[in-house]
Amino acid sequence: MYGMIATWRMAFEGVTKGTEILKHGGHAGDAIEIAIKEVENFEFYKSVGYGGLPNEDMEVELDAAYMDGTTFDIGAVAAIKDFANPISIARRLSKEEVNNLLVGEGAEKFAHKEGFERKNMLTERAKIHYHNRVKEVKELQLKPYSGHDTVGMVSLDVNENMIAGTSTSGLFMKKKGRVGDSPICGSGFYVDSKVGGASATGLGEDLIKGCISYEIVRLMKEGHHPQEACEIAVNNLDEELKIRRGKAGDLSLIAMNNKGEWGVSTNIEGFSFVVANQFQEPTVYLTKNINGKCIHEEASQEWLYNYMKTRTAPLVRK
Amino acid sequence: MYGMIATWRMAFEGVTKGTEILKHGGHAGDAIEIAIKEVENFEFYKSVGYGGLPNEDMEVELDAAYMDGTTFDIGAVAAIKDFANPISIARRLSKEEVNNLLVGEGAEKFAHKEGFERKNMLTERAKIHYHNRVKEVKELQLKPYSGHDTVGMVSLDVNENMIAGTSTSGLFMKKKGRVGDSPICGSGFYVDSKVGGASATGLGEDLIKGCISYEIVRLMKEGHHPQEACEIAVNNLDEELKIRRGKAGDLSLIAMNNKGEWGVSTNIEGFSFVVANQFQEPTVYLTKNINGKCIHEEASQEWLYNYMKTRTAPLVRK
Repeated sequence: MYGMIATWRMAFEGVTKGTEILKHGGHAGDAIEIAIKEVENFEFYKSVGYGGLPNEDMEVELDAAYMDGTTFDIGAVAAIKDFANPISIARRLSKEEVNNLLVGEGAEKFAHKEGFERKNMLTERAKIHYHNRVKEVKELQLKPYSGHDTVGMVSLDVNENMIAGTSTSGLFMKKKGRVGDSPICGSGFYVDSKVGGASATGLGEDLIKGCISYEIVRLMKEGHHPQEACEIAVNNLDEELKIRRGKAGDLSLIAMNNKGEWGVSTNIEGFSFVVANQFQEPTVYLTKNINGKCIHEEASQEWLYNYMKTRTAPLVRK
Repeated sequence: MYGMIATWRMAFEGVTKGTEILKHGGHAGDAIEIAIKEVENFEFYKSVGYGGLPNEDMEVELDAAYMDGTTFDIGAVAAIKDFANPISIARRLSKEEVNNLLVGEGAEKFAHKEGFERKNMLTERAKIHYHNRVKEVKELQLKPYSGHDTVGMVSLDVNENMIAGTSTSGLFMKKKGRVGDSPICGSGFYVDSKVGGASATGLGEDLIKGCISYEIVRLMKEGHHPQEACEIAVNNLDEELKIRRGKAGDLSLIAMNNKGEWGVSTNIEGFSFVVANQFQEPTVYLTKNINGKCIHEEASQEWLYNYMKTRTAPLVRK
């Protein structure tokens, strides 16, 4: 069996490429890397890689992680600037004996020495978003935070290797140096090839409080189907956060086990995700949580058309 | 009931001060902060705060975290330079709505704006260690890594609040920007006032692979005594790492539950820790793992005398 699951519609093109690798017997890590690079490189996805929205200093600071579920090798970068593909740097770091998580200037120094492609990740479109947001915040007293759509993926290859990967530009208008859940093992991602893997998107600060990706893999290890595992973990964390803090941020999780079975849960409306395995071509679903159970519906052609239309629509500076 | 538990002998003076706060009905967070500041300020402890050993660029980059087990507020800094007390910055960050984990330059910018004390954390003694190590590595082909003694603590106050805190300079000779487990929720620390808390020291890259502090709290939530919880988690992770990677790095964990009961486990020889509660003055113990069970022995006067003597002995540049 092989398979891939990923957060958000934006992962579709990447998952399609990654699945081709898996179909031909390729490694789960190659599938994840090519899939996430595809998302990083597409300038109209404004929360990952090139075109990602900047921090409050108008700098695009990126986080990414890579975990090998067979060896437990982990590599990650956080708050890295001016490199085209953070996921590839994370994967490279996973091969180091120590120093696997590098942040800021140190991460950039490593990536530079290793010859990774330099790129100014701030697009004209992202600058317009920035300026418009500054103006809106002034005029409407909006909170400057929103938009935190990490791409997170889990892949399974025919040799039973499982890999998890994440990549994000983090919260729009975040403080310089802010790191969310995406490069944090156990929170943004976790994978064990003997069991399965999970990855998160949403408000990093809240996802971290539940070590939620680790918890989902643990629940699968106890025997739960990925769908049950996701629902239990998301519902529990959502409830605990509301008890302790009066509210819960966005929490959306995807998971796949080592049989290619998958699950998704969310506490928001309209979370989209992409899944593929040996028996299913890459498919976009939308999900919603109804009294603790998540219902997944295949995205309509109309929804898919409108998605890309709104993502690529001309943007005017206000 | 009140209580505190902390990694390593170096925590003794801090735990003594922290326990005084708890004894008089003070908050678990004040106890943790004063206790960790004490360790950060003592120049002869070469793995935490002032006097901490530098990275390969001879810069002292520090990590710290603070978690409130009642509200789940978390604050952390990583790879921060030139500030006297990272634990206080972490505690301050825990009060922010988002942007709770800041790294590198962004963390420094925040701390500067908030008026935290600037300090060159590189001591003459640390420079001698650095030069000697560079020389040894050249001459003996030693690996440049060793020394990763994080101070990690859990406190419980009479109002049933529990706090966890960590502070470290990380691996000696680490790469610039390297972050270990200490500022990572679930790995270096985790606490839930309804259950208990845990904190880790050892090889961060390996501790992270098991989300081990979260796992210990989870085991306590299932009903395990802190001692059982620590032993199960450490033994399991040690075993998994050996199966997957052929070896396991140093793993040492401390835990306390919300009744003030405590536990400690390690996979190394001679891990020291400090514990105090309503019925016990701050006491230094040494522990060893014999076939999966950890035996704790109170440190002898001789051991305590030699500890401080070796820490403060004159250091000669080779």
